[in-house]
Amino acid sequence: MTNSLTPFFSPRGVAVIGASSQSYKLGYGVARNLTQSGYGGVIHLINPKGGEVFGIKMLTSIADIPDPVDMAILVVPAKAAPDTMRQCGERGIKAAILVSGGFRETGAEGAKLEAETLKIAQEYGIRMIGPNCIGLLDTHLPLDTTFLPPPAPRAGELAFISHSGAICAALIDWSMDQGFGFSRLISLGNQADVSETDMLSVVAADEHTKVLTLYLENVSDGARFIKEAQTVVAKKPIVALKVGRSASGQKAAASHTGALAGAESAFDAAFEKAGVFRADTTEEMFDWARALAWSPLPKGRHIAILTNAGGPGVIAADALELNGLELAEFTPETDAALTALLPPAASIHNPVDMLASASAEHYAEGLRILLADPNVDGALVIMPPPPMYPAEDAADAMIPVIQASEKPTVIVLMGSTAILEASAHLQAAKIADYRFPERAAAALARLAERAEFLGEMQTSVAPLTNTDIAAAKSALADAPSGSWLDIELADRLMSAYGISTASIKLAPDADTAAELATQVGFPVVMKIASPDISHKSDVGGILLNVQSAAEVADGFDLLMARVQAKRPEAILEGVHIQRMIPNNGQEVIVGAVRDPQFGALMMFGSGGTEVEGLKDVAFGLSPLSEKDAEKMLAKTWAGKKLAGYRNIPAVDRAAVVDTLRRLSQLAHDLPEIAEIEINPLTVLQNACVAVDVRVKIV
Amino acid sequence: MTNSLTPFFSPRGVAVIGASSQSYKLGYGVARNLTQSGYGGVIHLINPKGGEVFGIKMLTSIADIPDPVDMAILVVPAKAAPDTMRQCGERGIKAAILVSGGFRETGAEGAKLEAETLKIAQEYGIRMIGPNCIGLLDTHLPLDTTFLPPPAPRAGELAFISHSGAICAALIDWSMDQGFGFSRLISLGNQADVSETDMLSVVAADEHTKVLTLYLENVSDGARFIKEAQTVVAKKPIVALKVGRSASGQKAAASHTGALAGAESAFDAAFEKAGVFRADTTEEMFDWARALAWSPLPKGRHIAILTNAGGPGVIAADALELNGLELAEFTPETDAALTALLPPAASIHNPVDMLASASAEHYAEGLRILLADPNVDGALVIMPPPPMYPAEDAADAMIPVIQASEKPTVIVLMGSTAILEASAHLQAAKIADYRFPERAAAALARLAERAEFLGEMQTSVAPLTNTDIAAAKSALADAPSGSWLDIELADRLMSAYGISTASIKLAPDADTAAELATQVGFPVVMKIASPDISHKSDVGGILLNVQSAAEVADGFDLLMARVQAKRPEAILEGVHIQRMIPNNGQEVIVGAVRDPQFGALMMFGSGGTEVEGLKDVAFGLSPLSEKDAEKMLAKTWAGKKLAGYRNIPAVDRAAVVDTLRRLSQLAHDLPEIAEIEINPLTVLQNACVAVDVRVKIV
Repeated sequence: MTNSLTPFFSPRGVAVIGASSQSYKLGYGVARNLTQSGYGGVIHLINPKGGEVFGIKMLTSIADIPDPVDMAILVVPAKAAPDTMRQCGERGIKAAILVSGGFRETGAEGAKLEAETLKIAQEYGIRMIGPNCIGLLDTHLPLDTTFLPPPAPRAGELAFISHSGAICAALIDWSMDQGFGFSRLISLGNQADVSETDMLSVVAADEHTKVLTLYLENVSDGARFIKEAQTVVAKKPIVALKVGRSASGQKAAASHTGALAGAESAFDAAFEKAGVFRADTTEEMFDWARALAWSPLPKGRHIAILTNAGGPGVIAADALELNGLELAEFTPETDAALTALLPPAASIHNPVDMLASASAEHYAEGLRILLADPNVDGALVIMPPPPMYPAEDAADAMIPVIQASEKPTVIVLMGSTAILEASAHLQAAKIADYRFPERAAAALARLAERAEFLGEMQTSVAPLTNTDIAAAKSALADAPSGSWLDIELADRLMSAYGISTASIKLAPDADTAAELATQVGFPVVMKIASPDISHKSDVGGILLNVQSAAEVADGFDLLMARVQAKRPEAILEGVHIQRMIPNNGQEVIVGAVRDPQFGALMMFGSGGTEVEGLKDVAFGLSPLSEKDAEKMLAKTWAGKKLAGYRNIPAVDRAAVVDTLRRLSQLAHDLPEIAEIEINPLTVLQNACVAVDVRVKIV
Repeated sequence: MTNSLTPFFSPRGVAVIGASSQSYKLGYGVARNLTQSGYGGVIHLINPKGGEVFGIKMLTSIADIPDPVDMAILVVPAKAAPDTMRQCGERGIKAAILVSGGFRETGAEGAKLEAETLKIAQEYGIRMIGPNCIGLLDTHLPLDTTFLPPPAPRAGELAFISHSGAICAALIDWSMDQGFGFSRLISLGNQADVSETDMLSVVAADEHTKVLTLYLENVSDGARFIKEAQTVVAKKPIVALKVGRSASGQKAAASHTGALAGAESAFDAAFEKAGVFRADTTEEMFDWARALAWSPLPKGRHIAILTNAGGPGVIAADALELNGLELAEFTPETDAALTALLPPAASIHNPVDMLASASAEHYAEGLRILLADPNVDGALVIMPPPPMYPAEDAADAMIPVIQASEKPTVIVLMGSTAILEASAHLQAAKIADYRFPERAAAALARLAERAEFLGEMQTSVAPLTNTDIAAAKSALADAPSGSWLDIELADRLMSAYGISTASIKLAPDADTAAELATQVGFPVVMKIASPDISHKSDVGGILLNVQSAAEVADGFDLLMARVQAKRPEAILEGVHIQRMIPNNGQEVIVGAVRDPQFGALMMFGSGGTEVEGLKDVAFGLSPLSEKDAEKMLAKTWAGKKLAGYRNIPAVDRAAVVDTLRRLSQLAHDLPEIAEIEINPLTVLQNACVAVDVRVKIV
């Protein structure tokens, strides 16, 4: 696969514009790293004053750079950036990394310079990383365009794409004693041109990269991010750390959905939709990434624990359960083999405690027995520093057993100095080791989730029928911007997408009221219709359970008279007639808000007035597949309860899934809708009915 | 403070029974550590074969040990333990550490040997640690009775009491590069005699110990643990890691409270009551312990972040919010001082981003300015490896600023090799440093919680009045074991403790029914009374809103006839008459179950039939103070809602607190009560009423 970003990772020649022989300058650092990285192409160093550094004579002009030159690294003052970019363009360079700061991050003047530089780059068809970035490195090519002080990171299987340069620097240093290396590392800076989303597929195409890790402060284009990530995730896992969680939700939300849907709900939903793992901390991200890069995937969630001490075994069992994994139950053959292997006081049940006397051979053979058990999907091995022999003996004995198995094994080496050597051996064999059982268990859980994700990917999505986008658009046609949709139009909108409502009709007089009530079917509810009255029950404007045409006609006069007396200034348009929904159903809420990044964000949960207090809600991104909708139901008590609970009878769960999908399709198809909320959606035994629908126009 | 455990930490002479000159034996390891630990008392080594090791001539008999000898370490085969213990007793030794395994942990025979050895120890007044343990060490005395291979842990301020020996070994090794040391470390093994609770006060009395850390698999005596921990925690913080969370709750619970109250709810409640911090992982425990040992406590929750890079600053801000801390807003003076100090592109708002060019002096002066701000309660400083100078320069510059302040500062040194030296300097100055902002933020939060805990300790508890334990006991007097209390007796029980009920009375005939209804006041509810019918509404056995004596008399006949027709085999005792409670209140659940470790465990939450689905519940241990009860309310939506929410009016929150306390006192006073549950407790505007009360007898 080739695209306009490919030259960043396969340049035949690289030019450092602003190279320097003065060791305190960034241009010196870039020249140093590039020349010392082992890069096999041609290196050109440019400095208007000439001179020589790292044995390379510096050119004084960009125009003088001989072929080949595919990429330029610009370490020049911000003010010189536009002109330098133009010279690069004239020279035919197609990839530029603008390392320098002094642009948008410093204020309006810098932003202007950034825009100007970008414009010139675009004129010449140059793709640009930065400005205000550290650059990139590829440990396998190899290539290092950064100015970070040595040592460079070890070569490895993890790619890292970052919105923060400081995180890159800290991470490279931290990785040194954490047992993993990088394949590619990219600091994106201000992302004037190249964004995190642009980078996904080009980094994933790298054969050395097994897992992509992302440090994100936002995404440049939500829908595109999801699409690109989905494509990548089908082949290689992505783990993302998204910061900025403390950003609070929409301030002036008018619906429950709007009030509950913060920016982070949308990011959570987006990552879930894309199949991206969201880590809460940097440590988690690389704990998971190492296992994902190195381990085979388990076929299920049943794990065997092998330990030489009871305490850590208990911790591990707790951690497995907390992560949704289960302790495997062994076959009789396994029990017999363990009994034969271990002393009588050992525990042969899961967690298998071999006791402190366990030898390196016990570890290896015990693990072999466990991995051979068909009930075991993976193993977690715990080793505090063994009292009588070096920990690396046990590690060495286990390595061939782990490598021969199709099941994943993660190792917990508890301690520090006493297990360093064992840790190094495991890492060299590409086996993920951790200091504590909790972190190993979390990594195993991600492996199980990844396996399930890949298994579920094939599922085909049943298309929705009976959605009429033209009819929906016509319902919105005359609605003024920022307004709430008229109750009858909201009803038409629902009908257009096949969502069953309580059929609200406006009756301007008593006779029409009786007629409409006969149409919708008795009993009916009657509500005063007035643009001036929002809380109808406060003025006695509602009649429930009205049983006949005659009662409806009487009721019309009663409502009009009563409300007129209480609110003489209000304009009364008549009475709304609505089918009365039986009150033996369950009430849920479904809603959508337009997220600025990701489009229509759907909410499902416990309905009624306490939505925001109970917070029994789940989110998902439009359009929802049946599986997406099912997942949202499964996350809430409201969704679980639909299947019945104690004396609460089961109701039509499938109808809720269908309605949620229809509403999500509607919100997706009509970007004019800012917020839409059905509360309650009353769920009966064989249907569900939208009783109250509110729609806000953008 | 002196007690029978004091000799373990101040022995004038120590004897190793089973010392050995063969280096693969545990008795060699103990002799080695004891002689090399720097212990200043007299060391006696005993081996029946005599010989010499570490320059000490071994004695052949315990009887021959000369004075002084206060403590013995027994490294002998399990079978020899009883006789060896007897010889120690005869010799006048009062403290013994039985290191050997082969006791209860291996089965029935071992358990017998353990009991026998304990019995002999008790006959001679010997306190015994173990068996099956690693022993103890005190780095300040110093004294090391363990057999763990060197190096011994560094001297420090953290004490560690552990149910697992393997954890001790792993922890000592791990601590080496984690920047903390131990004051005392005790491995308790099988706890035949000395338990974790016994150790609390004697360890806390050590002047070198600033924080106690505990690794617990259970506690030996729940009530005593709480009492001892409360005493210690008033002076020194305790952080506990309790494992075994995966243990599931009570299997056959008959009430909602019982079904929801797992063993871990009780532990959570116990730790909260005792003021003990509960960590989820070993890393958390020591992250928090270091800060608690070294830092002053903050006066509030407003924190300043100082960084030289934006990304980590955002992570830190997220982490502070997640931990319930807040970003401080600076005074104008601080803004001015920071503006004067930093370059124009720096962000002087919290998080303060000094940019990558920040010097060591910027760090020191910036921190000084922030700590001087009255709106700032503490600081979190972030330092990725500075590009232009060693990280330790900035650390050294900040140390005097931090030490001069009464406010806590924690430091995030991001990276590994590049910040090792800086980390060592900070640790030497007793300043807590972390690799990641998330972990530093969590530690700061514990400091704030500790400060609040100490501030609240003084609050006096208003005693309950109007509780009649004799009347309560008499209500239970005739109830058979394991049974549910009769409905009228349950009512009497509530009255005895001043809990208002819906006044249930049994009417055997229609006339009595009318009479009783007149007594309790109209309207009333009538419910069929039968020991054979638990779901009364299913058989039409309930009449609501009955308005007069005449209607009650008619209703009696109706109910009897209707139920007799449907359930001819059921014994009908008559009809229960109950005051009808207005349905405009809020319904909550309050309950108690007897926890085997901690006594009466109280539950409060959203009532009704969906309790177990909504899981909107909180737990606390009896007896509850007003503050305890308030905390339980604050943790649930049901509790928050009592103050009113949108169109839901406020109800009598104080009455709920009072009822919760009364029920907790009742469950505390009467251990005969196995489970008790009021569901619903209907809360009205000026009262709350127990509508349905279920009481199960032990």
